[in-house]
Amino acid sequence: MTTSIDPLLSHVRIVLVETSHPGNIGAAARAMKTMGLSQLWLVKPKQFPCAEATVRASGADDVLARAQVTETLEQALSGCGMVYGTSARMRSIDWPTYAPWEVAQRVLRGSEDAPAEALRGEVAIVFGRENSGLDNEELELCAARVLLPTNPDFSSLNLASAVQVLAYELSSYNKRDVAAVAKPEDGWDPLATQDEMNGFFSAFEKYITDIDYFDPAKPKQLIRRLHRLFNRAAMSRSEVQIMRGIITAANKMMGQNK
Amino acid sequence: MTTSIDPLLSHVRIVLVETSHPGNIGAAARAMKTMGLSQLWLVKPKQFPCAEATVRASGADDVLARAQVTETLEQALSGCGMVYGTSARMRSIDWPTYAPWEVAQRVLRGSEDAPAEALRGEVAIVFGRENSGLDNEELELCAARVLLPTNPDFSSLNLASAVQVLAYELSSYNKRDVAAVAKPEDGWDPLATQDEMNGFFSAFEKYITDIDYFDPAKPKQLIRRLHRLFNRAAMSRSEVQIMRGIITAANKMMGQNK
Repeated sequence: MTTSIDPLLSHVRIVLVETSHPGNIGAAARAMKTMGLSQLWLVKPKQFPCAEATVRASGADDVLARAQVTETLEQALSGCGMVYGTSARMRSIDWPTYAPWEVAQRVLRGSEDAPAEALRGEVAIVFGRENSGLDNEELELCAARVLLPTNPDFSSLNLASAVQVLAYELSSYNKRDVAAVAKPEDGWDPLATQDEMNGFFSAFEKYITDIDYFDPAKPKQLIRRLHRLFNRAAMSRSEVQIMRGIITAANKMMGQNK
Repeated sequence: MTTSIDPLLSHVRIVLVETSHPGNIGAAARAMKTMGLSQLWLVKPKQFPCAEATVRASGADDVLARAQVTETLEQALSGCGMVYGTSARMRSIDWPTYAPWEVAQRVLRGSEDAPAEALRGEVAIVFGRENSGLDNEELELCAARVLLPTNPDFSSLNLASAVQVLAYELSSYNKRDVAAVAKPEDGWDPLATQDEMNGFFSAFEKYITDIDYFDPAKPKQLIRRLHRLFNRAAMSRSEVQIMRGIITAANKMMGQNK
């Protein structure tokens, strides 16, 4: 999984409108920075700057320090090419509404007919007040809505959590295609070869036959199941050596005891 | 976009280990409920129940009320088929590590060769302490790791935010229009529980001690490697029964030959 930050994220503004709790501003800054976002815009924050915001930012002070504070949402959106307004509830149906992953695609990847929005200008994602969200006038300023998929019976997402979800979606969207299983660095134990696996399987089969657990005359279903089990584990060479060492020790013990 | 809650989410446990700040427990409960998760397990929380937790849960009191508090991580994992340990940093390289969306696929969707893990047993996702995460012994109890993709220069995700990200990924994964869900046929063998795995491991350890392959006085590195090997295979209950049957037959044979 690639860990690099998509440079397009630098064109994404997170805009918080009239946030009441400075702690949420700090937590939002932290959420942004963990996901590689840096542009925080604050429209009429109740209290900012504020010690509580800095505490909750816990290390994302630079995002807070560079935060732009404006009097109106229009000011925070100035220069933006595309503006999304977030909502946890479907509020108006006669408005283009997207899921977070659709926003990520539009902003960062685009499609045949439309290049990534962040390549074409600044993109803003607007988050409303903790209690009342965005009012209709503010939503009118948003070209589209982001609908955060939540539990229909409990959609009360914390403000910083909503920022976290969008920031995570934006930072991870283009990583999903990449084979995301972490690439092992040096010191990775090589996988056992098929020959080594077969050598282990036949030693194992002989052993469970010797201890009267397996009857070669009977159907081989058991053997197939054991093969499936160990193949599924994608055994390393040294793991096969351990298992063969155990079988050797077991045979030696049987011999001694005979 | 469907807004219904995937019933498989009811088989997913969120396990928080030795959480210091009760506020994080409440925030985690809220994050879970907004995404339709309900099973919260708390291992030795510093303070719980606690007014601050309830305040931060802001409505997810039911999740807190049903939270299971345990003394050890083993207790919180009892009955679980698959266990993921979260990490924001790549810590050990010789361990299967998945991105959140890969975990969502494995847990809720599965693939041609393996059905959804939540269809085959309880699944736990374990989150460590705010400051120090999970220790190595705790990570040993996890069959796989979840690596949260974060800014390489700032990976300090708040605990509740990490829960939010995983919960969001789990709740939204099957809403993304990706390839069709792999339908497991009936009669899939349930995964072995952690208890069954532990029973197998101790019988196996005793056996390799009896045959003089393993010296309990020596460092336990060998045992850890065997645990990794079999945990990685995500063994089914009947596979564990087969392996235990082999050990029993081997012990019987040793007895006869004595």
